[in-house]
Amino acid sequence: MTRDEGLEALRKCRDRIDDLDRRILALLNERTRVVEEIGRVKHDLDLPIYEPKREDEVFANVTGNNQGPLTPDGVKRVFERIIDEMRNVQRLRMLDKDGNESS
Amino acid sequence: MTRDEGLEALRKCRDRIDDLDRRILALLNERTRVVEEIGRVKHDLDLPIYEPKREDEVFANVTGNNQGPLTPDGVKRVFERIIDEMRNVQRLRMLDKDGNESS
Repeated sequence: MTRDEGLEALRKCRDRIDDLDRRILALLNERTRVVEEIGRVKHDLDLPIYEPKREDEVFANVTGNNQGPLTPDGVKRVFERIIDEMRNVQRLRMLDKDGNESS
Repeated sequence: MTRDEGLEALRKCRDRIDDLDRRILALLNERTRVVEEIGRVKHDLDLPIYEPKREDEVFANVTGNNQGPLTPDGVKRVFERIIDEMRNVQRLRMLDKDGNESS
């Protein structure tokens, strides 16, 4: 591989990454909307927002379906962050709704 | 909404989440494979693995294309974790390749 060929290969890889990231982002936002819907239903039914058992199911779903090259621990850490961020969004909505800290 | 209807709605939401998570997982692993390809090209061309400018581009791509409900900061934190995990995979491969710490 010449240097020019290598640089061209790099450029193409980066375009693929950017495209993949936009698709991941769209799915993350779609997931957030479903989490918000869950929050509304739980609010109506007076159910607790935080359910550790359900979180275990979420982790089991992704680690059980992981074919790599990401490691199971890596997958778990990424989804911990995803869940954490969606909890933030939900918390902000609740505050907003109750008017406690809304702007 | 009756309690039964609410619980049924919850169940459907969770099925959607599980499906979304499997799709996110597949894209994350595809992204990891592209990152590994970049690692090989960079190794061949003797280029540095870590390029802060390119990381800024990655963040700009996702925050610039974010339509919410995730916040830009939330999106950035998720992608920081994603990038971090892929760096881990790459580091493990390199060690493996050089035989330094391979099993």
